[in-house]
Amino acid sequence: MSLSDRLLVRTCRREATDRTPIWFMRQAGRYLPEYRAVRAKASLLEICHDPSLATEVTLQPVRRFAIDAAIIFADILLPFEPLGLGLSFQAGEGPVIAKPIRTEEDVADLPDINAEADLGHILEALRLVRAELSDDIALIGFAGAPFTLASYAIEGGSSRNFVKTKQLMYRYPEVWNELLGRLAAIIGTYLAAQVRAGADVVQLFDSWVGALSPADYRRFVLPHSTRALELAGGAGAPTIHFGTGTTTLLEDMAGAGSDVIGVDWRIPLDEAWRIFPDRAIQGNLDPTLLFAGERAIRTQVAEILRQAGGRPGHIFNLGHGILPETPIANVQAMVDAVHEPPR
Amino acid sequence: MSLSDRLLVRTCRREATDRTPIWFMRQAGRYLPEYRAVRAKASLLEICHDPSLATEVTLQPVRRFAIDAAIIFADILLPFEPLGLGLSFQAGEGPVIAKPIRTEEDVADLPDINAEADLGHILEALRLVRAELSDDIALIGFAGAPFTLASYAIEGGSSRNFVKTKQLMYRYPEVWNELLGRLAAIIGTYLAAQVRAGADVVQLFDSWVGALSPADYRRFVLPHSTRALELAGGAGAPTIHFGTGTTTLLEDMAGAGSDVIGVDWRIPLDEAWRIFPDRAIQGNLDPTLLFAGERAIRTQVAEILRQAGGRPGHIFNLGHGILPETPIANVQAMVDAVHEPPR
Repeated sequence: MSLSDRLLVRTCRREATDRTPIWFMRQAGRYLPEYRAVRAKASLLEICHDPSLATEVTLQPVRRFAIDAAIIFADILLPFEPLGLGLSFQAGEGPVIAKPIRTEEDVADLPDINAEADLGHILEALRLVRAELSDDIALIGFAGAPFTLASYAIEGGSSRNFVKTKQLMYRYPEVWNELLGRLAAIIGTYLAAQVRAGADVVQLFDSWVGALSPADYRRFVLPHSTRALELAGGAGAPTIHFGTGTTTLLEDMAGAGSDVIGVDWRIPLDEAWRIFPDRAIQGNLDPTLLFAGERAIRTQVAEILRQAGGRPGHIFNLGHGILPETPIANVQAMVDAVHEPPR
Repeated sequence: MSLSDRLLVRTCRREATDRTPIWFMRQAGRYLPEYRAVRAKASLLEICHDPSLATEVTLQPVRRFAIDAAIIFADILLPFEPLGLGLSFQAGEGPVIAKPIRTEEDVADLPDINAEADLGHILEALRLVRAELSDDIALIGFAGAPFTLASYAIEGGSSRNFVKTKQLMYRYPEVWNELLGRLAAIIGTYLAAQVRAGADVVQLFDSWVGALSPADYRRFVLPHSTRALELAGGAGAPTIHFGTGTTTLLEDMAGAGSDVIGVDWRIPLDEAWRIFPDRAIQGNLDPTLLFAGERAIRTQVAEILRQAGGRPGHIFNLGHGILPETPIANVQAMVDAVHEPPR
């Protein structure tokens, strides 16, 4: 089967298909016992550095569920390693960046990096996964978007209010633009390299961009996300552009040029689709609903499919990643509900 | 001056005024050295329990800035003390609830509380503040909304994904409705008591309700917020209904019946006002913009006033509370910019 015949790819291109493709953000993760078994022996970064372990973990959810894509096991912050920012993950605390970016000098000191040389372990994992993956299953590559990556780099980790990030953005817009320009080039070429290594589709995660007003998004972020997507799209695979809390940004995000826009549960799918009718749409079940009973899950899946209205171009997904404590039976119930919608 | 002549009150009622009233969420707080001096001697809960200290802290920002309202110094979680939930604040960790609410029994075990008897220290502080406050300055009372209070009570503290909260909501809707019904009655009567103690206006903080989809908001929250506002409004003072990340909820929030809707910076003021044209509006400068330079602040104040378009019913405020590290000079610059808009 050629790349362009896979269900997910055809849906990204808004071709008519006989069913709705399905995958989940963070589908390989802690809610799976087979993932926890690997993590008992290897840290997150060790898995990412070992293409055969990364391949194993990437394939786990595809073996378990009838889903239409594997997403390469990686972390959006991996480019921080060759950039020399001192990335680590502390139990219960999330990512820690030992050498955050705060000044013009910090930005100037960033080394040039090259995806083939510096993130080759991820590209190798993509090749291994593609070789093992059933022919009809798509392989998804991904990267963090310039704003979201910059927020981690500047804050030194996760953040609630993004004070340091916005402080740099508002006070030193030239430094900000220099940093986001560098990140956009890195991200865009990294995504293109993932396509060359076998990714059928690539997703740009701007998970935290919903912290911005539309005016700030247009001024400080849109040009850089546009550039990253342009570089990624040059490799020939469809692109997905995702964020949370983005209701007021969707029109501008569509302007960044991806084939697909991913939305969270805060906006009904049909309302979102009215904002960007010329793109495919991905979403949007609230991942916390997977802690409810099977009936509530089936009802909401049906509601999402009703909102999608059978139009070409809907990829079923959650509105954000699967949470670690999610019961597997409920993920299965969601998959079944998408495959067998009520008549 | 009678209550109904104060600028803030007239603006809540969308009467024409000769200028835009201004106050800030968390205007009494850590960014003020005089507040930190009080906190060096007394904890947050100690201040709340001491009406004379609470009065002092409430008046601090009014002495410093030409603002149009004092907001009583308190915390939305104070009702958890008479409810027996074991409220404390741990340095750097935020609130901790020792006995969270998780089951039907936990809800049934909640004692009946009475604002006059059980939160009398706050009512006494309101009376003291009113006696000291300049006659033209409004006094604002407040409470947490049913959803936001329930989220703290169920999670046992702050939360990112509200998993336990939504789990209770989705799995045990009867227990959820019982809990939110109890909270709505407590909140509504507490707000009404605050009005009787001298509050000119009361604000209902549903800070985290933006985590919900519109359908879930309508089903699980709207009836309870409506009830709380109904009870509060019965005391005769205008009501403000505020949340963050609420773009897709605004129409329903307006349905809950407050006089004013407070919005954050994620939605332009004019766009929000199109959704509820028959209400006053409060907002919406991004509090992180107070870390930028004076010019950026002046530009954004002018933009907000332009969006408000001189129509009656705009209360200038931030989109959320002032952050602890905010430079005072920038708060002053914002106040000046609202008072002397560019010609």
